[in-house]
Amino acid sequence: MAFFIKKLTVIGLGLIGGSLARALKERDCVGEVVGVNRTRSSLEKGMELGVIDGFTTDPVEGVRGANMVLVATPVRSIVPTVRVIAPGLMPGAVVTDAGSVKGQIVLDCEAAMPEGVHFVGGHPIAGTEHSGVEASFATLFEGSRTILTPTAGTAKDALELVTIVWEAVGSRVETMDPRHHDQVLAATSHLPHLMAYNIVKTLSDLENDVQSEVFRFAASGFRDFTRIASSDPTMWRDICLENRGAILDMIDRFGRDLDLLRGWVAAGDGDSLHRIFAQSRDTRDRVLRVDKRGRR
Amino acid sequence: MAFFIKKLTVIGLGLIGGSLARALKERDCVGEVVGVNRTRSSLEKGMELGVIDGFTTDPVEGVRGANMVLVATPVRSIVPTVRVIAPGLMPGAVVTDAGSVKGQIVLDCEAAMPEGVHFVGGHPIAGTEHSGVEASFATLFEGSRTILTPTAGTAKDALELVTIVWEAVGSRVETMDPRHHDQVLAATSHLPHLMAYNIVKTLSDLENDVQSEVFRFAASGFRDFTRIASSDPTMWRDICLENRGAILDMIDRFGRDLDLLRGWVAAGDGDSLHRIFAQSRDTRDRVLRVDKRGRR
Repeated sequence: MAFFIKKLTVIGLGLIGGSLARALKERDCVGEVVGVNRTRSSLEKGMELGVIDGFTTDPVEGVRGANMVLVATPVRSIVPTVRVIAPGLMPGAVVTDAGSVKGQIVLDCEAAMPEGVHFVGGHPIAGTEHSGVEASFATLFEGSRTILTPTAGTAKDALELVTIVWEAVGSRVETMDPRHHDQVLAATSHLPHLMAYNIVKTLSDLENDVQSEVFRFAASGFRDFTRIASSDPTMWRDICLENRGAILDMIDRFGRDLDLLRGWVAAGDGDSLHRIFAQSRDTRDRVLRVDKRGRR
Repeated sequence: MAFFIKKLTVIGLGLIGGSLARALKERDCVGEVVGVNRTRSSLEKGMELGVIDGFTTDPVEGVRGANMVLVATPVRSIVPTVRVIAPGLMPGAVVTDAGSVKGQIVLDCEAAMPEGVHFVGGHPIAGTEHSGVEASFATLFEGSRTILTPTAGTAKDALELVTIVWEAVGSRVETMDPRHHDQVLAATSHLPHLMAYNIVKTLSDLENDVQSEVFRFAASGFRDFTRIASSDPTMWRDICLENRGAILDMIDRFGRDLDLLRGWVAAGDGDSLHRIFAQSRDTRDRVLRVDKRGRR
């Protein structure tokens, strides 16, 4: 892949921002990467690791002369950040983000863009349970999917550039309406994460005589099931606040299904239990087959 | 490890029974393994794979002359099976099981034993999302834990033999009161499995426009979180029926925590959300560190 971004600024130098910088540098897709962060220590770490070529804690200074800006901050900071940097952006620059919620964020960011600068909402579906620039690595996006959420006002060239960037680092790009994205993610990602957090809380609150054993005998199911409960609390707080409507809808659907399940257990209704378990197993197996096929 | 079981009979030749047979054979711990199953095809498969040395579909015939009998059937079949084989057991034989629920099952099995034959309740905490003898493998129990649930009536020698068997295949054995076992497992295993099944059901029932995308964009969280929803439906039905009380208690605790969480999302209470997410992350990280340390 030929060098195609002269200067990239990454605001919010964590797992995602750091991994994109590493991946683009490794493929010689980018001339210079500037890191911007509130905390200096992440930036110094980023320099040490060779993830960035320069840094500043001042966002306006950081975006000066940048052809592309990736806002990879926690979700609640995206719009304020974009508003702050707007006056410093170079005409022709393209701004994108990596937020797990789109909807209103995309509208607000688009509205904040000065003449000749374009915003394209983006969501790379990738991550580990670790966070921070020290956890970043160049192959994070290989085999992943990235959802871009263009609107009627998105410039074609800008969408194309952001598409090329994510494809260059090994991600498969698809586009989706911002609100639709939020519903889909509430179901596939936000609900599972919240249920994992919830289950860990439930277990933590057990009485002492059971609890001490509970964690000693945590079966492999617990390990898998709760891996996502090790995710960054700030990120998940922000997701809950920004995607409230879709998340509440999913929690309510889940709660109704839980009531049904509880009823079958209470009534000793083995037939209904077997039916629902068999259906869930079949659905999951079908989904993962489709997913595997869809990836390659 | 020296050869120490002349004849082992495995009733219910699936993942667990098959893996124990393989592991004991590989270590030359057993002279002869006889498989007993309702379906002939599993037994033929077991012969083909070298997991067993002989088989029968008649449990009473199967246990004739056996020094040790492992009942590895679905949970609901353990007590009926033990009652059927009781008259055929050789004096001095030891019977154990591999059920995920103990409690009443242990009491009923003990009561069914003829003079001079002992039952020891057991639960190897191991498994994959695959089932059947064809999924069995000799290293399944390496690094696992096995809980044995002796009671006041359990003979020391019998407990010792069953302990040696599980330790021989790489499992770490601990003992626990049968009822306490059921509470601990309801928390660490049964609740997570039921929530995984429930989430898959919730997603399956979404309206078409969202659902088609939901499964295409199933993030890695979904994959991990729902792995356990691919488990055997009959096994999970039986667990729900046999451990009803402890499971209902856990579902209710989970439901109360879910109500709290829902309230914080609805109210946009970012502080409470952040607190609970941070606590859950810290708890999980602490637990897995302890678990890792505990294993070696």
